[in-house]
Amino acid sequence: MTNRKAVKMSIEGRKRVIIENVKPEIDGGQFPIKRIVNDTVKVQADVFSDGHDEVVARLRYRKMSEKRWNEVPMKFLGNDRWEGIFTIKEMTTYVYTIEGWVDRFLTWQKAIQKKHEAGQDLKVEFLVGVSLIKEASKRATGQDAQRLAELGKFIKNENIVQNIAVVLSHELTVLMSTYPERRFSTRYGKELLIAVERSLAGFSSWYEMFPRSASPDTSRFGTLKDCIDFIPELAKMGFDILYLPPLHPIGQKNRKGKNNSQTAGQSAPGSPWAIGAEEGGHMAVLSDLGTVKDVEKLVREAKRHNVEIAIDIAYQCSPDHPYIKDHPDWFIKRPDGTIQYAENPPKKYEDIVPFNFETEEWNSLWNELKKIILFWIGKRIRIFRVDNPHTKPFLFWDWLIGEIKKDYPDTIFLSEAFTRPKVMYRLAKSGFSQSYTYFTWRNTKKELIEYCTALTQSDVCEYFRPNFWPNTPDILPEFLQYGERAGFMIRFILAATLSSNYGIYGPPFELCVDAALSDREEYRNSEKYEVRHWDRHKEGNLVDLISRVNQIRRDNPALHMTGNVKFYDVDNDSILFYVKATDDLSNIVLIVVNLDPYHTQSGWVHVPLKALGLDPAQPYLVYDMLSNDKYIWHGERSYVELNPFAMPAHILRVHRRLKREVDFDYYL
Amino acid sequence: MTNRKAVKMSIEGRKRVIIENVKPEIDGGQFPIKRIVNDTVKVQADVFSDGHDEVVARLRYRKMSEKRWNEVPMKFLGNDRWEGIFTIKEMTTYVYTIEGWVDRFLTWQKAIQKKHEAGQDLKVEFLVGVSLIKEASKRATGQDAQRLAELGKFIKNENIVQNIAVVLSHELTVLMSTYPERRFSTRYGKELLIAVERSLAGFSSWYEMFPRSASPDTSRFGTLKDCIDFIPELAKMGFDILYLPPLHPIGQKNRKGKNNSQTAGQSAPGSPWAIGAEEGGHMAVLSDLGTVKDVEKLVREAKRHNVEIAIDIAYQCSPDHPYIKDHPDWFIKRPDGTIQYAENPPKKYEDIVPFNFETEEWNSLWNELKKIILFWIGKRIRIFRVDNPHTKPFLFWDWLIGEIKKDYPDTIFLSEAFTRPKVMYRLAKSGFSQSYTYFTWRNTKKELIEYCTALTQSDVCEYFRPNFWPNTPDILPEFLQYGERAGFMIRFILAATLSSNYGIYGPPFELCVDAALSDREEYRNSEKYEVRHWDRHKEGNLVDLISRVNQIRRDNPALHMTGNVKFYDVDNDSILFYVKATDDLSNIVLIVVNLDPYHTQSGWVHVPLKALGLDPAQPYLVYDMLSNDKYIWHGERSYVELNPFAMPAHILRVHRRLKREVDFDYYL
Repeated sequence: MTNRKAVKMSIEGRKRVIIENVKPEIDGGQFPIKRIVNDTVKVQADVFSDGHDEVVARLRYRKMSEKRWNEVPMKFLGNDRWEGIFTIKEMTTYVYTIEGWVDRFLTWQKAIQKKHEAGQDLKVEFLVGVSLIKEASKRATGQDAQRLAELGKFIKNENIVQNIAVVLSHELTVLMSTYPERRFSTRYGKELLIAVERSLAGFSSWYEMFPRSASPDTSRFGTLKDCIDFIPELAKMGFDILYLPPLHPIGQKNRKGKNNSQTAGQSAPGSPWAIGAEEGGHMAVLSDLGTVKDVEKLVREAKRHNVEIAIDIAYQCSPDHPYIKDHPDWFIKRPDGTIQYAENPPKKYEDIVPFNFETEEWNSLWNELKKIILFWIGKRIRIFRVDNPHTKPFLFWDWLIGEIKKDYPDTIFLSEAFTRPKVMYRLAKSGFSQSYTYFTWRNTKKELIEYCTALTQSDVCEYFRPNFWPNTPDILPEFLQYGERAGFMIRFILAATLSSNYGIYGPPFELCVDAALSDREEYRNSEKYEVRHWDRHKEGNLVDLISRVNQIRRDNPALHMTGNVKFYDVDNDSILFYVKATDDLSNIVLIVVNLDPYHTQSGWVHVPLKALGLDPAQPYLVYDMLSNDKYIWHGERSYVELNPFAMPAHILRVHRRLKREVDFDYYL
Repeated sequence: MTNRKAVKMSIEGRKRVIIENVKPEIDGGQFPIKRIVNDTVKVQADVFSDGHDEVVARLRYRKMSEKRWNEVPMKFLGNDRWEGIFTIKEMTTYVYTIEGWVDRFLTWQKAIQKKHEAGQDLKVEFLVGVSLIKEASKRATGQDAQRLAELGKFIKNENIVQNIAVVLSHELTVLMSTYPERRFSTRYGKELLIAVERSLAGFSSWYEMFPRSASPDTSRFGTLKDCIDFIPELAKMGFDILYLPPLHPIGQKNRKGKNNSQTAGQSAPGSPWAIGAEEGGHMAVLSDLGTVKDVEKLVREAKRHNVEIAIDIAYQCSPDHPYIKDHPDWFIKRPDGTIQYAENPPKKYEDIVPFNFETEEWNSLWNELKKIILFWIGKRIRIFRVDNPHTKPFLFWDWLIGEIKKDYPDTIFLSEAFTRPKVMYRLAKSGFSQSYTYFTWRNTKKELIEYCTALTQSDVCEYFRPNFWPNTPDILPEFLQYGERAGFMIRFILAATLSSNYGIYGPPFELCVDAALSDREEYRNSEKYEVRHWDRHKEGNLVDLISRVNQIRRDNPALHMTGNVKFYDVDNDSILFYVKATDDLSNIVLIVVNLDPYHTQSGWVHVPLKALGLDPAQPYLVYDMLSNDKYIWHGERSYVELNPFAMPAHILRVHRRLKREVDFDYYL
């Protein structure tokens, strides 16, 4: 219980500084903000005192494992708001807080300057300052102490102009701010946490694929070995992560057939998410795919190509899972003795049995679920895409992710929760590194701007890292069903440039597969229920575009972040224009996308020259990294025209004009 | 330190409900929200669980002095947001929090309904429900237990339609919600406080007057006895509070003369805020005014007329204050042995010596300052207007107000801090009941709407009660200097109808005194530095208008609140239109003010019929309580025309149309 405590005389009543409204601070400090190494942390707070005295604020931070604090001065922004910034140097938990105090020296320095300007008598004023400097010299050490003592003596002479020069000197100001009187300083009452993850948590491109469809030989089931063979091609396309749906044995009972039909034929392979059969459960591999050893080999081979393997964690069972016999208490038994299958009334999922997280045996259940992760960590998997985390308790995730990250801080969890926003955000607070989003259904200019603004312009961006997927095995969105090849190009470019983390479900994506079940956003003949074979080299495939965009992403640090996206005006509602830039403006990317997959669209984009540090009086060069075209732009408005059948977007790198008329840095 | 604790197995892992984003909650629960008796408290929170189960949320509250909680159900607003409301019944501190749980019965009831509609087999489902009802009957007592047991048995028959009728019956639903299973319920981690004050803290009209100018005899100094004589007139004008500037002995040393001049003549009475002379300090009364006994008499006489006396608390001293000799440690001694007077460089206030709140003796200083309040409380003063609280430490106010209110909860403190917004808000959090505001300088339509919106449409309204003053002895705003009589009328009506708490400094206000120092917003020949005599009955005085508006305020509960103000469109930037209504819409007041003191202005106001529960198809009557005029309005747009020289405003009470054409409730 956090009640307001009555203020008692036992406090230090001379602490005059108030610190409040600290940002970021997630749920009163209950949850950490997230960063990766080399990210900056920008902290703001209201810091003020009574009266007119000068206030100083410092941002303090440390590694959780170390006691020693670092300090950076905070800058006054106006209206009692202060800001401090520091950079994360190491993949470890950090702590930050704020300290502020009334600075008697600065107060005196400012007052004497004003009094001097007003021609007032300063004799006694100088004596006050000399005593402040003397006190500081006692707090100082070595040469600084000696120098302060000297400066104090300078002021004792009768030459007012010379005294004032010493009082206002840079040297004295710096020395005094190095040894301030902090006896009555106020510390913010909370120490706030920063969860630091490795860089892949912040910048990643995912490729999802069903191993059983990976066989180049259309007559047989694909295997993990086929996946190994595919790795070089995937690496060439520029993906960082190959994510595989569950690899485990699949239940026989109530197995689903083609297109989710109730009765599976003899040959139906079943849904990979119906996990567990006699041969094993979450720690086994379906023999048709290979062995646990094959998984390890895949991980190794992928690593050689700088690709990591992500596996699926779906905490649910088929009715044949060994857990059901071995741990009946982990499931809901109905009054007729049967085990409760999954449902969302009136829908039934008879091939799936959920765990009962309200079981008396929740302790052993939690531990077993943790064991599953640790098993795969033992096989060198470090990335887990978690299926439907929103149907398991939040406290469980708080615990599980905390437990795993304690020993394996390089583990990355992706939350596959397509549900209500507050539930998705709460899961991110639990520690998920990345999260699926509504991007999949945000198509129009208004929708995209509103959604990206909501994700990046509020506290949400401090803990929720979006991962944009234009498609998944569960979702073939309407836009892709009707948008033809240009539609796939548009959605791909948006996903890969709006968000630093994105993924596609292939090969259906790069092959522009748009066959859906009637009136549904689901694939016809979905791989979820049958083995497919894909001709990756079919004409019209998007492999070249994808490869190029992934290369552009790698080359441009501005695209390694999501929170830096800013939208600007275009006088055409079918064209979306946004800018991503690094903090230091050394890398500026302008992205212009025609959202209409059927028609050429044109318009005038409004380039925010001032915000980008560009001289409005001078032309500048933009280089389209998609087409290799170059344009010389001039002024705030520039004309664009995009034919979706050729290329629905520009991804333009800005080249700042240098000294002479022809000296674009691009040519250097 | 509030760090995120690692979730351990020692918790109850089956608590599935999350409660977050509770509003109101001031600074994470560090400060109470404020209410008066009969106010409602509306609390919102995000309450949700994993999965698809039904969630129940309850708002819990209690008097701090009692252990027993009351509960009200919270209503689901959508997007995981819930709201609950309760009413404050007593002037005591309240506590509130939230509890939520997954309701297995509601989940089951909803599921069986859907399954029934889908024609699924329900046999086993009914058995599940029967067992839930049986468990509830064990938790229930008396007749309820018996009835639940009976209802459980009804469901056991084979008639599905009848079973469903019982399952969905109101009776079963109510009984089950009376005895829910709360074993795994989640309590919000904080118990939040409500500081409840008496009604005058929320609804009050203040009149400030210098007693020394209260003499009807122009040849002599006004006294407290003159104030007593003035009380009936003040009561007739409808004021609740008579606020008197400091009544204490005034220092001689560095006394200020007319118009704040450095050298006071023999006859200069000095500023009442230069407190303390040989004859006494903050617990004494200037002999020219009378005695402490006279103060007590004034309080008594005022009470007979339902007027309360507020005195000024100015924690500062004249150089002659006895404290300076008796407690030199409470002041700043300069190196030359002199005591530091007040300054805001380069400005000097030589007649004032501030306390040094950084003194080693701050304990004894705080206790003495508390003693001053207690002294006047002993004389039955319960309202204190505090001078410049922003130049004393916030922790001091936290402590002082807490200490006083502990024993005298009916004490009201008004914060006279004209300073930066965050400082003003922090003082309100310290416990000040009301606060001066920037209203004094907000004149245009845009300024007024923006400012009132900032005060009423954010968390600020939960702890900061504005008090609107069109003038003070320190401030004669430009608008009043140039606006003539109409200007005073406009500013008065705005203050008294925008804010439930307002005040004027009279008689200069009702006499429309507009003589200012050149280029300053200060009165010429200010009463702060000389004795004045006023002819209250001078032609053109605003006594009638003031009396009428105060009567309108008393008669209309909608004007007893500030947070209910809402602004609506008028097609003229010189006309401001706002509405105040009670929650139940039983009292609706439309206020239209011409902000231009020089010209008649007209326009069409947009009345929000729907929000006010008015039928757009029917005419309704509005009664102008200022002029006694009546208008029949019809539809959303109505024409207004306001001549500032006659009356610059309408204050219209809406009379809802009753059944027959001519039956306005006004006539009933």
